[in-house]
Amino acid sequence: MDTKFSSAIHTLILISESAKPLTSEEIAASVGTNASYIRKLISMLNKKDIIESHRGVSGYTLKPKAEGLTLLQIYQAVNETETPRIFDIHQNPSDECIVGRHIKPVLTDMFTEIEDTFSRALAEKTLADCISLMRKRL
Amino acid sequence: MDTKFSSAIHTLILISESAKPLTSEEIAASVGTNASYIRKLISMLNKKDIIESHRGVSGYTLKPKAEGLTLLQIYQAVNETETPRIFDIHQNPSDECIVGRHIKPVLTDMFTEIEDTFSRALAEKTLADCISLMRKRL
Repeated sequence: MDTKFSSAIHTLILISESAKPLTSEEIAASVGTNASYIRKLISMLNKKDIIESHRGVSGYTLKPKAEGLTLLQIYQAVNETETPRIFDIHQNPSDECIVGRHIKPVLTDMFTEIEDTFSRALAEKTLADCISLMRKRL
Repeated sequence: MDTKFSSAIHTLILISESAKPLTSEEIAASVGTNASYIRKLISMLNKKDIIESHRGVSGYTLKPKAEGLTLLQIYQAVNETETPRIFDIHQNPSDECIVGRHIKPVLTDMFTEIEDTFSRALAEKTLADCISLMRKRL
């Protein structure tokens, strides 16, 4: 587990809610990390058309509306994968045992089904839902 | 990610399907690991009443029926947690920023909801479902 996903949501809330474009230094101060880490996240989000930078203007803005930006899209961007994976499978089961011979495809099928449920749960939540939860606390 | 969970499912399929009690050496040969790793898994499964060893007899047997043993119970046992967690939250957001001040409880609420969906998906699958998927491949 790492904190790229939570740091990216924090970054996107800041960018979405700020009246003016924010620099990576300003974002890093709020997230509690360094600006180069934020620029790395921003580069991944940028690659997926989630944020954009403007020629001649410092700072970033959100490209889609917060209502249309799902947590799945953010997760995919910062983990650089289309298919979120939660489970790992042991790599050296014995081919000489009937269970060992079939365990990988069996667990792959089983785990993929559960990971699909996880992806759907991520796709049902948006950045706007996070912002709305935050407003309720203010 | 580690492979304790997949190795535990492999171990439990072997124990459930074997005509005779299996030793940790026999299980390790099929899983493709060493016997001490298997004994560590078995100790965690034993603590949660998933398998039992018999006094004076070498080897282990399954305690509940495979139909009644959910993947959630196996996951909880080998991860030594009641509440499966998928996400981590960055630990040093700034208290001086309104977003930084509220990000932790907001993300905790959001992530807990998604992790609950994941737990329910794990609770809907049983060891018997894994065994049935394996039989279909034989």
